[in-house]
Amino acid sequence: MSDRHRPAPAAVPIHELISHRWSPRAFESRPVEPAKLRTLFEAARWAASSYNAQPWYFIVATKGDSENFRRVLDCFVEFNQNWAKNAPVVALSVAGHKMTHDGSRNRHAFHDVGQAAATLALQATALGIQVHQMAGILPDKAREIFGIPPDYEAVAGFAIGYPGDPLTLPEGRLRDSEMGPRQRKPVSSFVFTGKWGQTSPIAAN
Amino acid sequence: MSDRHRPAPAAVPIHELISHRWSPRAFESRPVEPAKLRTLFEAARWAASSYNAQPWYFIVATKGDSENFRRVLDCFVEFNQNWAKNAPVVALSVAGHKMTHDGSRNRHAFHDVGQAAATLALQATALGIQVHQMAGILPDKAREIFGIPPDYEAVAGFAIGYPGDPLTLPEGRLRDSEMGPRQRKPVSSFVFTGKWGQTSPIAAN
Repeated sequence: MSDRHRPAPAAVPIHELISHRWSPRAFESRPVEPAKLRTLFEAARWAASSYNAQPWYFIVATKGDSENFRRVLDCFVEFNQNWAKNAPVVALSVAGHKMTHDGSRNRHAFHDVGQAAATLALQATALGIQVHQMAGILPDKAREIFGIPPDYEAVAGFAIGYPGDPLTLPEGRLRDSEMGPRQRKPVSSFVFTGKWGQTSPIAAN
Repeated sequence: MSDRHRPAPAAVPIHELISHRWSPRAFESRPVEPAKLRTLFEAARWAASSYNAQPWYFIVATKGDSENFRRVLDCFVEFNQNWAKNAPVVALSVAGHKMTHDGSRNRHAFHDVGQAAATLALQATALGIQVHQMAGILPDKAREIFGIPPDYEAVAGFAIGYPGDPLTLPEGRLRDSEMGPRQRKPVSSFVFTGKWGQTSPIAAN
């Protein structure tokens, strides 16, 4: 199992739910139990949002529902379809761009969908499940296939399941990426105090 | 302490890190230990992002640094200044709109700042700290005060600290909101299968 857990090499200790979340492309074929899958969306529900507008929506399909699984997959770019087709669950997130309380534009719609998605992924991690989010989707195709109304917009794709054997991925870029080191820019490069670009004492190395 | 923990009334069990995160407006005056504060940004660092672009930036100030604390506070709308001034730490998030790998527009910049912010808030919860995020900020003022460059944009404000006594808030809306029930729309209203608006079997009540 050691190759299916890829804890972040955090510079200082962080909660293990956060360090153990990652984005696999290889998944076990076994289904995600519906009751467990349900909790991922319950977790998303409790994310924070501007004016509590909760602008997040999800379109989900499990492999057992082959027609709808195919329709979600068709909204991913081809590169992502090639590996995501082996996940037991796929989904799309959708943002609502209008505020519910006054119909104005919600500047934070994508931001708050992101908060819900991150929360969903961490709840998955708590259950041994992982979520690979994809920017590479076809929003116009999603609108057409699922009848997403004006003022709503598909945001991202998701492959959801138990992490599988990286050797099931084709040799090359995909397999290398699955097994290589996890990388992020240092905290000192993005936590500032006083003016833009000035590292905060809190984030100094 | 019971009035300082407001676990979400989740419909099905979710990880307690997620159910125990909330957005207080009353904070204890005691500082957040710098080593603990550091971990919040380390957690944000390990969020997922499109092309691993990590488009998140933070401008932070602690109350001990009164000049910079004031400057962050000045970027909040007046309503938020009135209560956030009592938090021991304030911050702004900033999004980078250009992809690092090719300079193209990052459609998911706000989304991924949201993922980092949600992750940061959950790491805080793990330490007994809470984060109140604010949509109500003045992005143009933040640009001016902190010299935020073109292609970057202030996204949201943060008040960070240990939750305090709700009775320190003025009577009325603020105190009522701090002590009232936590509310969200049901999962059945935002998790669909097959077509827009059709509740997924996974989310059925």
